[in-house]
Amino acid sequence: MPKFTYNFNFGGQNSAVFIQDSLPGIEDLQNSGIHAPEDKSRRILLVCDANTQPIARKIQESSETLIPVCVLQSGETHKNWASAEAIIKAAREAGLGRDGLFVGIGGGVISDLTAFAASVYMRGAKLSLVSTTLLGMADAALGGKAGFDYLGIKNLVGTFYPASRVFMPLCSLETLPQREWKSGMAELIKTAILSDADFLNQIKTLKQGRENLDACIAKAVEFKGRIVEQDPKETGKMRALLNLGHTFGHALESAAGLGKISHGEAVAWGIARSCELGMELNITPQKRAAEIIALLNDFGYETRAPHPLNIPAEEMLKAMSSDKKKQNRTLAFIVPAPQGAEIAQIPDGSPLPKKIINRESQ
Amino acid sequence: MPKFTYNFNFGGQNSAVFIQDSLPGIEDLQNSGIHAPEDKSRRILLVCDANTQPIARKIQESSETLIPVCVLQSGETHKNWASAEAIIKAAREAGLGRDGLFVGIGGGVISDLTAFAASVYMRGAKLSLVSTTLLGMADAALGGKAGFDYLGIKNLVGTFYPASRVFMPLCSLETLPQREWKSGMAELIKTAILSDADFLNQIKTLKQGRENLDACIAKAVEFKGRIVEQDPKETGKMRALLNLGHTFGHALESAAGLGKISHGEAVAWGIARSCELGMELNITPQKRAAEIIALLNDFGYETRAPHPLNIPAEEMLKAMSSDKKKQNRTLAFIVPAPQGAEIAQIPDGSPLPKKIINRESQ
Ligand SMILES: NC(=O)c1ccc[n+]([C@@H]2O[C@H](COP(=O)([O-])OP(=O)(O)OC[C@H]3O[C@@H](n4cnc5c(N)ncnc54)[C@H](O)[C@@H]3O)[C@@H](O)[C@H]2O)c1
Ligand SMILES: NC(=O)c1ccc[n+]([C@@H]2O[C@H](COP(=O)([O-])OP(=O)(O)OC[C@H]3O[C@@H](n4cnc5c(N)ncnc54)[C@H](O)[C@@H]3O)[C@@H](O)[C@H]2O)c1
Repeated sequence: MPKFTYNFNFGGQNSAVFIQDSLPGIEDLQNSGIHAPEDKSRRILLVCDANTQPIARKIQESSETLIPVCVLQSGETHKNWASAEAIIKAAREAGLGRDGLFVGIGGGVISDLTAFAASVYMRGAKLSLVSTTLLGMADAALGGKAGFDYLGIKNLVGTFYPASRVFMPLCSLETLPQREWKSGMAELIKTAILSDADFLNQIKTLKQGRENLDACIAKAVEFKGRIVEQDPKETGKMRALLNLGHTFGHALESAAGLGKISHGEAVAWGIARSCELGMELNITPQKRAAEIIALLNDFGYETRAPHPLNIPAEEMLKAMSSDKKKQNRTLAFIVPAPQGAEIAQIPDGSPLPKKIINRESQ
Repeated sequence: MPKFTYNFNFGGQNSAVFIQDSLPGIEDLQNSGIHAPEDKSRRILLVCDANTQPIARKIQESSETLIPVCVLQSGETHKNWASAEAIIKAAREAGLGRDGLFVGIGGGVISDLTAFAASVYMRGAKLSLVSTTLLGMADAALGGKAGFDYLGIKNLVGTFYPASRVFMPLCSLETLPQREWKSGMAELIKTAILSDADFLNQIKTLKQGRENLDACIAKAVEFKGRIVEQDPKETGKMRALLNLGHTFGHALESAAGLGKISHGEAVAWGIARSCELGMELNITPQKRAAEIIALLNDFGYETRAPHPLNIPAEEMLKAMSSDKKKQNRTLAFIVPAPQGAEIAQIPDGSPLPKKIINRESQ
């Protein structure tokens, strides 16, 4: 029994989310709701990486028939066309038709890759996701962004393709390494900053223990889901808010070399920079910035500028100016507002981002 | 001045078509209608193949600034990821952002590849097409199907991504080789069969001269556009009708080895087979089948079964059963009805298709 269930509609595509203790079985994954009862003849492909293979195996065992599994190498450095191609090839070998079901079992890398492969396979096959990282549950598995990195740019190639069903089995987090907990927590904190003080306070309790974890994930899912419903393809300004910390964060991640710094750690560092930029622009009150940065420090994130890894600001600025969030030669930064956050458009070439990256934090 | 202009709405995406004598200039391509006036800062990438490079150059010369051109190798055998990748790389090098404009200049291979690249570049950039083959004008450039071949299967990887603007400059057809005229004519004939007797009669006049060509292209555009408007992602049955001749045709094309037989010639052969299947199923009246096959013969198409290239039926059946049009273990064939056409679902494994492929035509 799911502890929390959500039903979203992303631009006409239904996406159901189940936050639950246990792993889903094949039947749960296959059943696409009231509309289409389970189709026994439908072919399925499970996709996982080396670290989530044990989870995939358990799911596989819930089926009487043998379901094929495509095992990818793990990590951001394998979030590329070769991995997407491997999924497509495995789907072909498994005989999936346009009505075939792709099931991504893993963190954000696996869900982004599997969703991309499903989105282009015969111009769009079926997709369910089983999210096994905190980052995946708090963010990556929901909302339809799919893709892979290319030419050193994160998600340069991608599509929008929401999964019909997203399972978030809390039990899967038991094997999650500490580093990945920390990475996911950053996205939870990000969402709480965007949301409200209640959520932010609930997050603080996670320092003591994980009792409220399911409720925090549920809040993050609900918040993100509602935003994506209003702006499924990020054509408006709503969805862009979810990029809080990401313009600086992606720049750090890219300049450090993809995979060096975890996505969440980069985002946390980026949120700290956004606070500073927001103060500079008179959007973020000083008290709010201080509170956010203190929370990030509490959770052990690196918030100092310049970043201790000594990454040249020039490299980050170059990465920034090739960022997808760039339009009409301005860069969009999301900065905390007195409540929630706001978009600040900074002309490309303005000295401000460089100043923020380089300036020693107070 | 365009001779014919159409404005379609494909699942929320506007797609304007201009049938005109001359080539469009950069400004025509860039201007995305009343909604967004020309954006001077927008970066553009032209995409063409070796044969359409002279056309791309003329379009390029209409601009004061230097617009980069990505030149691909021509032909179906290059409709693959490597070509899509080359476009994406060139776009990146040219500094295109998410608001960058991809312009595909060529036949169906170039439009399918360019549309695919645009659809996945930063999760979707802008797209205009200049169609330079009869097949492109009659069919491929309109309606949003994008993609490339993989594992020997036509368009195994793809997306739906209609171009904002599609130009069909009749002058570009002057350099079109005879084989390509013949290939495109098959799609025109296909559309006329689906449409009405008037259109079919107009097609017949093309045997004498090309006076009515622009009107025939316009009719094909209008017919296909209206169907795609009703069923943009081929989820219903409407759009599937456009596949008349394609299940047999694709099978022939794949079994012969992609690129050996032109798409149109394969489709024409497939239409003849569909007539025979339709008669077998008591859907296609004998008189209608005879009329259609006579027309195809008149235009010089190979309509005989078994196909003189001696391609084993088994190979074609294998290609068929991996076709995207397969769902729930049945194969969909479109067969001519007394007026227009109908879908016939044939269970995978039925001896009927093989019989039709092998049986000597009357
Ligand atoms: N699509 C979106 O909206 C969105 C949003 C945020 C982030 N992302 C993407 O998500 C990715 C980061 O997500 P991530 O950190 O989950 O990536 P990930 O998939 O690489 O997972 C992190 C690591 O944890 C391992 N792992 C996963 N589940 C495990 C488990 N239960 N037990 C033990 N190990 C496990 C993985 O093998 C990997 O080594 C980035 O590529 C980012 O771009 C996407
Ligand atoms: N997206 C769709 O809805 C759709 C519909 C039908 C067909 N298609 C696809 O279209 C492709 C076939 O289209 P095509 O025949 O136009 O392919 P094509 O692009 O390969 O063009 C055929 C040949 O003509 C050359 N050429 C193009 N324009 C020319 C010109 N003006 N002068 C001289 N040479 C020129 C090309 O270089 C190529 O050698 C297939 O890949 C098929 O799958 C797509």
